[in-house]
Amino acid sequence: MLNKLRLLTPGPTPLPERVRLALARDMTHHRKKAFMDIMMRVQERLHVLFGTSEVVLPLSCSGTGAMTAAAHSLFAPGQHVLVVDGGKFGQRWRFIAEQRGLQVTSLEVPWGKAVEPQAVADALKAEPDIAGVLIQYSETSTGVLHPVKEVARVTRETKALLVVDGISAVGLVPCPMDEWGIDCLLTGSQKGLMLPPGLALLALSSRSWKAAEANDTGCFYFNLPAEKAKLAKGQTLFTSAVNLIVGLDESLDMLLENGLDAVYAKQWALTMLNRAGVAAMGLTLFAPEHFAWGITSVQLPAGVDGTEVVRIAMEKYGVCLAGGQDHLKGKIVRIGHMGWVDWADALAGLHALNRSLIEVGGYCASREYMEVAMSAYHMALKGKPGQALPTIHS
Amino acid sequence: MLNKLRLLTPGPTPLPERVRLALARDMTHHRKKAFMDIMMRVQERLHVLFGTSEVVLPLSCSGTGAMTAAAHSLFAPGQHVLVVDGGKFGQRWRFIAEQRGLQVTSLEVPWGKAVEPQAVADALKAEPDIAGVLIQYSETSTGVLHPVKEVARVTRETKALLVVDGISAVGLVPCPMDEWGIDCLLTGSQKGLMLPPGLALLALSSRSWKAAEANDTGCFYFNLPAEKAKLAKGQTLFTSAVNLIVGLDESLDMLLENGLDAVYAKQWALTMLNRAGVAAMGLTLFAPEHFAWGITSVQLPAGVDGTEVVRIAMEKYGVCLAGGQDHLKGKIVRIGHMGWVDWADALAGLHALNRSLIEVGGYCASREYMEVAMSAYHMALKGKPGQALPTIHS
Repeated sequence: MLNKLRLLTPGPTPLPERVRLALARDMTHHRKKAFMDIMMRVQERLHVLFGTSEVVLPLSCSGTGAMTAAAHSLFAPGQHVLVVDGGKFGQRWRFIAEQRGLQVTSLEVPWGKAVEPQAVADALKAEPDIAGVLIQYSETSTGVLHPVKEVARVTRETKALLVVDGISAVGLVPCPMDEWGIDCLLTGSQKGLMLPPGLALLALSSRSWKAAEANDTGCFYFNLPAEKAKLAKGQTLFTSAVNLIVGLDESLDMLLENGLDAVYAKQWALTMLNRAGVAAMGLTLFAPEHFAWGITSVQLPAGVDGTEVVRIAMEKYGVCLAGGQDHLKGKIVRIGHMGWVDWADALAGLHALNRSLIEVGGYCASREYMEVAMSAYHMALKGKPGQALPTIHS
Repeated sequence: MLNKLRLLTPGPTPLPERVRLALARDMTHHRKKAFMDIMMRVQERLHVLFGTSEVVLPLSCSGTGAMTAAAHSLFAPGQHVLVVDGGKFGQRWRFIAEQRGLQVTSLEVPWGKAVEPQAVADALKAEPDIAGVLIQYSETSTGVLHPVKEVARVTRETKALLVVDGISAVGLVPCPMDEWGIDCLLTGSQKGLMLPPGLALLALSSRSWKAAEANDTGCFYFNLPAEKAKLAKGQTLFTSAVNLIVGLDESLDMLLENGLDAVYAKQWALTMLNRAGVAAMGLTLFAPEHFAWGITSVQLPAGVDGTEVVRIAMEKYGVCLAGGQDHLKGKIVRIGHMGWVDWADALAGLHALNRSLIEVGGYCASREYMEVAMSAYHMALKGKPGQALPTIHS
């Protein structure tokens, strides 16, 4: 009774009441008209969200399932791909591609840094048989935003397909697929879309569709051309994740009723709030330059055990933060600010982080960080999303 | 306002209010203790439902995803399997196995009939390299119940793994996996479990685990040994379908609070209700001998268009029935009576079927079918599940 639970992890995110009530609706049949009408309505708005005139396929799986579907659909065993490997999810691209039997060249990027578009260009020049570039837009394990727009400028001049894991990006940061020249964009339901996990969305460019149609998926469950044919009838190939799609109908309403620009402006302002607050605490931002709009990763002072910080924030303050993964375990804390999260939730996150840090490390650099954070928030809301504030990068 | 919608399809089924409220709960994080406790509680009761001491893995996919996972986990490309092919889902086993690169021998069974266990024994004797037998327990496209118990008596004396699609069977008809010697049993959430679609459950026998551990899945998303290792910590390998698992916690409560015997007795009685009613209408049961306990398939009189019957039942009476698939399209009607369906819903289904038949074909053989159906229901509830009533098979 003392604390409400506040989910400030980089997915799954809290759910709006409107979505929760939609999830609780009684079942409708996935081959009948009432559901097909919902699918068509959802599809229209997914075109807007993805910035594409191509179909956006709903798949009954997690985001990793959609990554697997992409690797199996676009490439055949033996083909060569370049993986941008700058975190746990970059590694996952590599594992998925290897399991598919692809020849993988890893472009390793230090965790916390973004890839240099020129490095992608050089790799493609050096190995012209590369058929695809697999990348994250937002690398959830580090809080880095890779420069997908600039990488797409490189890939669209080559035969390599640009395959973007947009799981922690779609609905959080602009990612206009057609305009930028992305060949495959995919996401999961439990991030910017404010839904429970279990539904993935995936779109292909026209040149990706050519590849998918010529290819043998090798895995019956992931058959994108057959899904596309079914979607034309407002259906999915196998039984649809009905209540998640009914929930998506509602969450797309929420995202689009004020326009995506307002959504991105909010995400940018929450990002500025968190970064200013963390900096005012005297902490180091783990992704200093190219950072995500839905997650802020914080380097902890030496000797402070991040696992303890996360535990105390949860137990004493009801705030659920995420720790680091793999070699960053205990060394960073990741604050999620995506989905159904607002400024007051973010403030609670900063305060819980600060108090937990004091308890674990006796660490206290500022008593003003919350006001500083809120000033950055208000300033960011007045400015242009993506335009750094002078106080943030000073 | 005139009619309530009554979903009498063979999945998805209506949802109990308790489950719907559970689905609407706010999000919990899939790597935190509160969720792991739910996973452990769910697991304990899944052992009871599946009749196995082995783990029952929750997978974020539809039932077809679990079929794909089984084929990829248990067999390597080039291995030889026997598929019992007596309907659309038998065919699906064949497609999945072929996509995996397996050598497939089809044991073809006329649609509406069950496989002869001796035919399986003969096939295994003729081709001793067969590594697996893929079968449905309940073939949803025809309403047939294959004699899995008897087939298991055959397979367990051989090296062939018995892989059972229990999608329309688990929670509807007894299927004690360990006792019978089933090597893989899988199901989906939207049938006997009274949940929305999007979650599958899968269990392996100890000899199946040996095969899975020695095998390379070839599809990153389906990695059963890695799922098993994660489940030991109350987690899934990738992001869990959180709200479906929270719903499963509730539906398992409902199924087990009166005991599974009561659930099977109800399913048997609903089956007798439907079969007696349909027979009293003068119609032919499409699966005359070996029939499912959650679906009744009805052969329509010559010249009656089943698609029209289904359309009218829905539009005029709010009753959602299923038509036939593939070459049975328009020729049969399938009445679902699984999940959150009771005798009064089943009565509504019979009445809607009768009235729609009259409208389409001028067909009316009895005005007593509803009383006959209810007599069979009450008689079946007093008897032993699975024991045919004298009036039904006369």
